[in-house]
Amino acid sequence: MALIVQKFGGSSVADAESIKRVAKRIVDTHRAGNDVVVAVSAMGDTTDELLDLASQVAPIPAPRELDMLLSSGERISMALLAMAIHSMGHEARSFTGSQAGMITTADHGSARIVDVTPVRLREALDDGAIVIVAGFQGFNRDTKDITTLGRGGSDTTAVALAAALGADVCEIYSDVDGIFTADPRVVPLARKLDHVSAEEMLELAANGAKVLYIRAVEYARRHGVLIHARSTFTANEGTYVLGEGMVDPRLNSKESAMADVIGMEEPVVTGVAIDQSQAKITVIGVPDVPGSAAAIFSLVAKTGANIDMIVQNVQSASPGRTDISFTLPKQSAPEVLRALTAEQEAIGYENVVHDDQIGKLSVVGAGMRTHSGVSLTLFEAMSAAGINIEMISTSEIRISVVLRGDDVNEAARAVHSAYGLDSEIEATVYAGTGR
Amino acid sequence: MALIVQKFGGSSVADAESIKRVAKRIVDTHRAGNDVVVAVSAMGDTTDELLDLASQVAPIPAPRELDMLLSSGERISMALLAMAIHSMGHEARSFTGSQAGMITTADHGSARIVDVTPVRLREALDDGAIVIVAGFQGFNRDTKDITTLGRGGSDTTAVALAAALGADVCEIYSDVDGIFTADPRVVPLARKLDHVSAEEMLELAANGAKVLYIRAVEYARRHGVLIHARSTFTANEGTYVLGEGMVDPRLNSKESAMADVIGMEEPVVTGVAIDQSQAKITVIGVPDVPGSAAAIFSLVAKTGANIDMIVQNVQSASPGRTDISFTLPKQSAPEVLRALTAEQEAIGYENVVHDDQIGKLSVVGAGMRTHSGVSLTLFEAMSAAGINIEMISTSEIRISVVLRGDDVNEAARAVHSAYGLDSEIEATVYAGTGR
Repeated sequence: MALIVQKFGGSSVADAESIKRVAKRIVDTHRAGNDVVVAVSAMGDTTDELLDLASQVAPIPAPRELDMLLSSGERISMALLAMAIHSMGHEARSFTGSQAGMITTADHGSARIVDVTPVRLREALDDGAIVIVAGFQGFNRDTKDITTLGRGGSDTTAVALAAALGADVCEIYSDVDGIFTADPRVVPLARKLDHVSAEEMLELAANGAKVLYIRAVEYARRHGVLIHARSTFTANEGTYVLGEGMVDPRLNSKESAMADVIGMEEPVVTGVAIDQSQAKITVIGVPDVPGSAAAIFSLVAKTGANIDMIVQNVQSASPGRTDISFTLPKQSAPEVLRALTAEQEAIGYENVVHDDQIGKLSVVGAGMRTHSGVSLTLFEAMSAAGINIEMISTSEIRISVVLRGDDVNEAARAVHSAYGLDSEIEATVYAGTGR
Repeated sequence: MALIVQKFGGSSVADAESIKRVAKRIVDTHRAGNDVVVAVSAMGDTTDELLDLASQVAPIPAPRELDMLLSSGERISMALLAMAIHSMGHEARSFTGSQAGMITTADHGSARIVDVTPVRLREALDDGAIVIVAGFQGFNRDTKDITTLGRGGSDTTAVALAAALGADVCEIYSDVDGIFTADPRVVPLARKLDHVSAEEMLELAANGAKVLYIRAVEYARRHGVLIHARSTFTANEGTYVLGEGMVDPRLNSKESAMADVIGMEEPVVTGVAIDQSQAKITVIGVPDVPGSAAAIFSLVAKTGANIDMIVQNVQSASPGRTDISFTLPKQSAPEVLRALTAEQEAIGYENVVHDDQIGKLSVVGAGMRTHSGVSLTLFEAMSAAGINIEMISTSEIRISVVLRGDDVNEAARAVHSAYGLDSEIEATVYAGTGR
């Protein structure tokens, strides 16, 4: 008898009808002879509506109270889901984050899970009940206060429960069929992946791929949880995210062992991700002396902005000087610009320019470790498409390039095809956010 | 420094504006140098909306899950209220029923309070914080599940907190100014009472007066809690509900001692209550032999209906037989009629008739104990108004009569005036339910 953890997001439980559909899906999994634990998000836009109410009564809501408020959203969805299952003749019990033993730090709004003690969940499972747990929330042992996990919280709840209960698989349901070689809304010939390695998934997610949150994937990798990303709206198998030494359940171990040996399991490029959320800042005419870069990036660090790529030209227009460009989230740019401008004299640079019309394209593949010439294919595809590259950065299993935002989609299609990722048929695309 | 418990119902926190108004009121009480603990209901129609959602996903929602669902309503209102207070520069902390130590029986939907252990509330008060508690909810120690208290739950929460914390007063806020000698919407010359005894309040509430729930008044009487029923919308003092040996705070003890001696504190009649929620059933031609009544009322008891008044005629139309009439809540009548009809032969009565066009008028006053001729005034007033009395029942401090429903309002005005309760000016009436 397997133990399966399932996570359903807000769009999967947006109204009574959706809740009943999800309930049926859960019951089917239970009927098939599995123990089932479900992590559920708040219904549809509940969280946004509660945030709106909060802003109406307090310009800056007290964090403890905001968590108390927001945590009520999952209470509603989980209770309704448990009722729906119950009325289908199956025992179901819902549990809040604290009842489920989801113990977190006291950082309201962005609490991190420090321990999971699912005593009551085990009791319920032993009684043959289906367990429904409120996603996104936990509580702090010292303050005894309710906390929320922040963005991607419900995915993390599901993975943390799977780890604590030793679940066989953690199914993350969304409105897309799984992980694709590229966003099907941009690259119609994108293929759904049967499986992807956790490290590849992290690179894809970190570079713009939606569907899964980095935080949940990272937690799964650290705790050896097998994630199965699949769709709420179809019965299709989705994509398995495989951590160290994990095997796609659809291959028998012999096959996969073979596969490892002949490297079949490591395509040169697994997927193409695009990201239009970044801006580029270029500091022009920086004195080409030790310490200049340090001065600039210590300033940037103080603003809390997350720097992604950094490129320093060998030679600037003016002799003895250099230009330093870096990318960062669009919303961080204004503050970083303020900080740099305030210190222009101290640093002694000539000028600073800001560009929020850039896009980033990344190709990710574990096979890059063992194959050469991977970047060449990328550059050739781009030039063939007449698209100019502005910045380049690479990791062990990733190559990223910055280009004009308008060129990103076309570039993605060209590169996807150049690496032989195109499928013969167009992928079905569902309306929705991918979450 | 006094400790004041305040209760605000759903209509007092229906939207962001109302919440801010209530927050200001709480802050003012705190600024005046009091410790403040607030019990709050769910916003406006939240509970009904949640019930509606529940009925959409499950015809008969599982009670445990229904309580989990409904208890989220107060979480929302209390968190918003705490935020609003916080943003006014005062420390405020909200607590769920379980966090507040509201320990109840495991009867979901109608749990009774068995213990209150407000450890965290005391800590918060010691920190100088304003305490906000979710009304209507608690938890059971054995099942560790969340429970709700049922109708009038938030009033009971407030009184129970006041008892457990030894509060100086429990202020129950609603949209009326306090307890009146009659419903001002029916009797324009009704007067607001400065105070009323708990036993009188119980009789008034039990016989149709709204504003306070019997359950809360009963709890307050048993635990010696001073209730102050007042309006959310005015600063006026309301009505104090005085238990055994309690004194109206507005009288000094000497005054009230005097008052007791000369009986000033016991007007013959304190108030007039009307009730149109009852129906009358008359069983005609019951064999006038021992056991007939027992047979009938054991049948009625089986249906769970609450019988109010019972009258047995000395003589029925047919010799050797009698007629038995009793009143009960309108919604219970159909089932009781079914039960009686099914057993007609066994009991051997001739016929049963049902009348849901009746009304009940009650006059209540502790002074009845020490004054005679109280009922005469009532009967004279009724006959002067040409209103026929169908049934009569009395308790130590109450006289109730059943009459045509259409006559109730006119009768109330006549009786109110006959007992000299009329004020010189008409009472201000606010829109709203009185809750």
